[in-house]
Amino acid sequence: MGETHAPGTVRPGGRTARTRAAALRAASDILVEKGFTGLDLAEVAGRAKVGRTTVYRRWGSAAGLVVDLLADLSVPPLPDGPADTFEDALRANALTVRERLADARQGPLFKAVVAAATCDARAAEALRRFHRVRVAEWRPCVRRAAERGEVPHGTDAGEVAVAVSAPLYHRLLAGFGPLDEAAADRSARAAAAAARAGAYVR
Amino acid sequence: MGETHAPGTVRPGGRTARTRAAALRAASDILVEKGFTGLDLAEVAGRAKVGRTTVYRRWGSAAGLVVDLLADLSVPPLPDGPADTFEDALRANALTVRERLADARQGPLFKAVVAAATCDARAAEALRRFHRVRVAEWRPCVRRAAERGEVPHGTDAGEVAVAVSAPLYHRLLAGFGPLDEAAADRSARAAAAAARAGAYVR
Repeated sequence: MGETHAPGTVRPGGRTARTRAAALRAASDILVEKGFTGLDLAEVAGRAKVGRTTVYRRWGSAAGLVVDLLADLSVPPLPDGPADTFEDALRANALTVRERLADARQGPLFKAVVAAATCDARAAEALRRFHRVRVAEWRPCVRRAAERGEVPHGTDAGEVAVAVSAPLYHRLLAGFGPLDEAAADRSARAAAAAARAGAYVR
Repeated sequence: MGETHAPGTVRPGGRTARTRAAALRAASDILVEKGFTGLDLAEVAGRAKVGRTTVYRRWGSAAGLVVDLLADLSVPPLPDGPADTFEDALRANALTVRERLADARQGPLFKAVVAAATCDARAAEALRRFHRVRVAEWRPCVRRAAERGEVPHGTDAGEVAVAVSAPLYHRLLAGFGPLDEAAADRSARAAAAAARAGAYVR
């Protein structure tokens, strides 16, 4: 629309943005097919039709690509409406977490991030940051439950979030038991009972 | 002691066993230093003073080495004595799991196995097998608790094991919060409360 851009500024939708989108799309495709150790920068360049030098200079390593993918990830928000009970609220959250992890593109991405975080400091920090943002989503329902006297005051939202999510991540990563709605339901039921008993008061 | 061996049989303590031990030791050292993606077969051969061809032929890939390391892992058993309460028994188990994961050699190995399992079918199967063996260790204390009426009959030992362990694995892998004794204690307290409430009945 007649906009002009100073040299060196980033133009949204410009060549840099298109290059990045193509490379991230190719990286994501490869992760779904082959997992983290199959993520080869030369193959990303080839599939994205982007110069190898550009890919190496911009991301440096497979872990660098995964960090950028995670930053770009649009995660569906947790259900926001007040639920009838704390357990209902946790169940709705657990089902959303399960959906994310079971998603055909997001599941492999989460696995790749965890794999990258085991051996790359930037990926580990990106994963911690991701979790911090996610934990903030759990505060409203824990606060409401404490206000209604369903759980003790001082119940920690981070502990509740880990209690509900960790068994689901465990299933994704260890492949131990199916990552189904029953698993999400059990996780929510268990965390609600433990929270009512005061196990997450800090 | 004057034993003889038919050609082609494995001699315990013989050259094959020494080669394997040296290679696994080198692989384990590299995992502690660099993590899974830093595990290079040529470097294993060099450090173990074993021919590269031998290492490539025997293990084939970094994931192959990790699978063999896991098979070789001697895990300290869970505490066996009857505890005063179910919660005490879970706490003792949780502290043992925490010790394994926080161990300077076992921690990096567990991370490597999870990383390998995200992209290698044999590693994924080895990890599932490892968990099946571990879950069996939890049956006695869950059975005793059901017999004493502390938890409902039908409480599933596998669900209890995952409930106690998953938040600790999550801390190891996501680096979210310290992997300390307080975390183990909280995990045990939460799982005991949930089990008493019947959340793990299948």
